[in-house]
Amino acid sequence: MSTHPFDTALALQHQGGHDFTGHTSPAYWNMIGPFGGITAAVTLNAVLQHPQLLGEPISLTVNFAGPVAEGPVTARARPARTNRSTQHWWVELVQTGADGTEQVSTTATVVTAARRPTWSASDAPMPAVPAPGGLPRSARPDNLVAWLARYEVRAIEGDIPQRWEGQAAADSLSRWWLRDDPPRPLDFASLTAMADVFFPRVWLKRATRVPVGTVSMTVYFHADSAQLAGCGSGHLLAEARAQTFRNGFFDQTGLLWNAQGHLLCSTHQIVYYKE
Amino acid sequence: MSTHPFDTALALQHQGGHDFTGHTSPAYWNMIGPFGGITAAVTLNAVLQHPQLLGEPISLTVNFAGPVAEGPVTARARPARTNRSTQHWWVELVQTGADGTEQVSTTATVVTAARRPTWSASDAPMPAVPAPGGLPRSARPDNLVAWLARYEVRAIEGDIPQRWEGQAAADSLSRWWLRDDPPRPLDFASLTAMADVFFPRVWLKRATRVPVGTVSMTVYFHADSAQLAGCGSGHLLAEARAQTFRNGFFDQTGLLWNAQGHLLCSTHQIVYYKE
Repeated sequence: MSTHPFDTALALQHQGGHDFTGHTSPAYWNMIGPFGGITAAVTLNAVLQHPQLLGEPISLTVNFAGPVAEGPVTARARPARTNRSTQHWWVELVQTGADGTEQVSTTATVVTAARRPTWSASDAPMPAVPAPGGLPRSARPDNLVAWLARYEVRAIEGDIPQRWEGQAAADSLSRWWLRDDPPRPLDFASLTAMADVFFPRVWLKRATRVPVGTVSMTVYFHADSAQLAGCGSGHLLAEARAQTFRNGFFDQTGLLWNAQGHLLCSTHQIVYYKE
Repeated sequence: MSTHPFDTALALQHQGGHDFTGHTSPAYWNMIGPFGGITAAVTLNAVLQHPQLLGEPISLTVNFAGPVAEGPVTARARPARTNRSTQHWWVELVQTGADGTEQVSTTATVVTAARRPTWSASDAPMPAVPAPGGLPRSARPDNLVAWLARYEVRAIEGDIPQRWEGQAAADSLSRWWLRDDPPRPLDFASLTAMADVFFPRVWLKRATRVPVGTVSMTVYFHADSAQLAGCGSGHLLAEARAQTFRNGFFDQTGLLWNAQGHLLCSTHQIVYYKE
């Protein structure tokens, strides 16, 4: 059985202490560096692999400080504070430049905790949408960037514009079914990557492909590892919309449910755009 | 003219290098430590005061790792990476314990940038609501915790329950007009604090005061300092709602507009709750 490309991209070797080494993956390459979702997943994975880990992920914020170059990457995950049932982490991705100096490409904070059963409820029910089986797979120009071929998208609304006419859309809402391609059982790392699969809302809103780059991304986890494992490799319903575009930055808010309608995570990001 | 209590609470002395010292403020005291919004504002202020600062705040994530004790606080703000027009910051708040060791109470990341005028639009228009002048000031038990008296709230909907009957509400939406008391001209620090003024959504949803604590909070800024200054000390419309409550943690998403309907920031947090 061959290794899934996501697991290859995610792989980290513990170097002792707080350092883990991995390597960028051509299968998840974006235009000038790795797909941001895979960078976020690697960042989280350093915490998940750390021998001092307490509990499971509650919250992750990843800041894309600079480009990740093709090659080896060190993920450095340090516990900033460990309480009885929660733990706060600093994480950074560093690479060594040609001059031998370390350069930080990515900074992150992660909160993990031991969850206990409590009263639970949701104010974000899954919208009524057609099942994935009845929807065509959305066309993605997979010769453009490699990572697009790593996800199966079946759009319900707000698919990537087929014509770039430069006209403002009424809104920036996308709803689609989503899973790994090839299918892979869901876990915290793959859910994190899926939270970044939405194409930039400014492209939908303007139908113009201006240069963009995510600056900071947050994921709040509403499921534990057992619930994620229970999702198997089924489709998730993923929804995203922008809130405001202003002078070079827009924010986006998203939700991902499993097919049974359980909200698995909420996610937010702020994105740079040009022009 | 006396100093506004917010400015007293915010005050930091640069110690050289990356360290700034301040002191907790009784005027913004919560139950067992400072109001989280003032801690977030102090964290941001260390970046704003830093001599190496590039640009203005775009994004802030603050993690409340442990309680802040009454007394002196050191805010340590270090640039992790400085690009041509964006800058990524690590910030931590530390206090020295009785045994002389440093303890981290708060971790944060901040992104600042030089903004340039671009195409702009909003997908989050301000809802149609009555003007603040026609609404009564919401009662807050200001003998309970000091910081509640530092904000003037005029609730439109979703005010704090007047009866704690333990019944689940249909939703967790609050909308209210908000400003500092006494009034104070708006800036990045005060907007950050106001993004944390919402009482816990789980109290609204359940009408039960279970123990709670914000774990991580993010603010995305959609205004520059000139636009904030232009708001003067006018009321802001603040809206928040929870998305999901599950096994000890719920998330909350919020928006703050000025009275002219411009979205000044979006804000998100994940909150621990017991039972």
